[in-house]
Amino acid sequence: MKETVRIVVDAMGGDNAPGEIVKGAVAAVKGRSDIHIILTGLADKIEKELSRYQYPDGSIEVVHTSQVIETAEPPVAAIRSKKDSSIVVGLTMVRRGEADAFVSAGSSGAVLVGGQAIVGRIKGIERPALAPLIPTKNGVSLLIDCGANVDARSSHLVQFAKMGSIYMENVLGVKHPRVGIVNIGAEEEKGNALVKETFPLLKECTDLNFIGSVEARDIPAGVCDVVVCEAFVGNVILKLYEGVGSTLIEKVKSGMMTSIRSKIGALLVKPALKKTLKTFDASEYGGAPLLGLKGLVVKTHGSSRAKEVENSIYQCVQFKQQAINEQIMAHIS
Amino acid sequence: MKETVRIVVDAMGGDNAPGEIVKGAVAAVKGRSDIHIILTGLADKIEKELSRYQYPDGSIEVVHTSQVIETAEPPVAAIRSKKDSSIVVGLTMVRRGEADAFVSAGSSGAVLVGGQAIVGRIKGIERPALAPLIPTKNGVSLLIDCGANVDARSSHLVQFAKMGSIYMENVLGVKHPRVGIVNIGAEEEKGNALVKETFPLLKECTDLNFIGSVEARDIPAGVCDVVVCEAFVGNVILKLYEGVGSTLIEKVKSGMMTSIRSKIGALLVKPALKKTLKTFDASEYGGAPLLGLKGLVVKTHGSSRAKEVENSIYQCVQFKQQAINEQIMAHIS
Repeated sequence: MKETVRIVVDAMGGDNAPGEIVKGAVAAVKGRSDIHIILTGLADKIEKELSRYQYPDGSIEVVHTSQVIETAEPPVAAIRSKKDSSIVVGLTMVRRGEADAFVSAGSSGAVLVGGQAIVGRIKGIERPALAPLIPTKNGVSLLIDCGANVDARSSHLVQFAKMGSIYMENVLGVKHPRVGIVNIGAEEEKGNALVKETFPLLKECTDLNFIGSVEARDIPAGVCDVVVCEAFVGNVILKLYEGVGSTLIEKVKSGMMTSIRSKIGALLVKPALKKTLKTFDASEYGGAPLLGLKGLVVKTHGSSRAKEVENSIYQCVQFKQQAINEQIMAHIS
Repeated sequence: MKETVRIVVDAMGGDNAPGEIVKGAVAAVKGRSDIHIILTGLADKIEKELSRYQYPDGSIEVVHTSQVIETAEPPVAAIRSKKDSSIVVGLTMVRRGEADAFVSAGSSGAVLVGGQAIVGRIKGIERPALAPLIPTKNGVSLLIDCGANVDARSSHLVQFAKMGSIYMENVLGVKHPRVGIVNIGAEEEKGNALVKETFPLLKECTDLNFIGSVEARDIPAGVCDVVVCEAFVGNVILKLYEGVGSTLIEKVKSGMMTSIRSKIGALLVKPALKKTLKTFDASEYGGAPLLGLKGLVVKTHGSSRAKEVENSIYQCVQFKQQAINEQIMAHIS
């Protein structure tokens, strides 16, 4: 049997906390026996939720914390002042080696800032990167970086490419992941100063399957597995994905309601369509890992329900058991 | 009656040239009497197309050019070496004042490079900007800049905001256009170095209705009329719009084909849906003006058909008759 993976789950984070978070944690320990969950947050609220379920003895532990970091709080100040919050206590357990991973659906800013400040970077990693999975035509791609630190240097982007490639190969099982850099044209001489500087560096990396420039138009078609860009561009891509998707789906729905004929048709296509569109919903793909830290920190969508929490926990198990951080260290040094 | 507007149309540019280009030009002169069209390109091919239509005497003129710039050619070299191409001859007519505007569905690069090099910038304009209209939930927004020059300075972005605002107000009739800057958060302190530097400058512009930062997620919802960003980000937004849209529509179509029930439904919703989705197709909104030049240059989509060419021609008329360039000059000095 494989080694048990100890995962701290922030029971207070996200729109559906603590109910859906606790439910997801219970599902995970029932689904696999090599998981130990530590729930951080207000103990009485967590215990109340836990009392509704049956699960293996000793598989879930509660660590009481008295403070909660709200989504709107300025992250740096929140991390500094709320030492007894579910986020700070959880991240501290990872730093101390008392847990292998931390999962939160709470404040992105606080998780990012806290991850760097408390857990700390792997030696040699210049900047950690937030790397969500985005849906494509027939699967998913890893978009790296979508973090809070913008204006990256070329050396950062090269590290992002390596970490992203290791993650896709070992956590998602993609053989020789295709790595592309976001650019405004396919030719090597195109791009802004950062891309032009990074391109030849990526070409030299013998440990990468670098396929060159990728235009934004081709990202949803799934032309590469690891989409490398600096965080400003990554944020624009991630959020525009969501924005175009939801506006277009609204248009499809309202378009179906314009005549009696189409209304009847809508009733017939609805179930099949719903299933298909679900495959294009970014929130379906578990959490975004913050790669490059000494322990694993995973940020799940603020609107996560039990299923996403459960999936994020499984992601952590895979991450630990595949020794991703050891591989990152080997490729960086 | 209003002054006649003289518009050069590149009859050789785009996937459907010369057939659809000529057809669109004919439709325009039949639609309005204040338009004079000059078609540049291989005269025998153009005349052959023209012979298929009836149109007012003297409303269309053909200027023969012996060379054609292909889409794949390096733009700078093409503009320099092909002096007798439909693009170079057309742009030269605008520079000499023999025409008010130039419309092309040909090589974007050549039109951008040629526009700057041949027509030239308005005095005081540091960098011209390519500004396509993008579809939103209930209308369109102007995305400025999507041009070929990346790594802009804050002073460029301020000029983009002003030119875009004048265009939306006078060509599209939007009163007090809402101007937003693309950012990764709503707060003023967020963003990369360029956005942080530009934000206070835009706030100071009393001639702008500046609404602050706009997240990419909210662009498709239509939260602002003028979306300001540097060209790398603009290109990513424009192309991702197209990419997410087409992948999602493919998903919708295949989703409808998964069962007998949904196939029947698909037949019923198809006509209504097609009409709705057309409103979210960027190619429906005419051409993208290259703002900041001494004359008007409009780039239409490479796949443009007669309707888009006709609409681009009307856009030019509005641009000239509303004296957009005179207004830009007044706001820049």
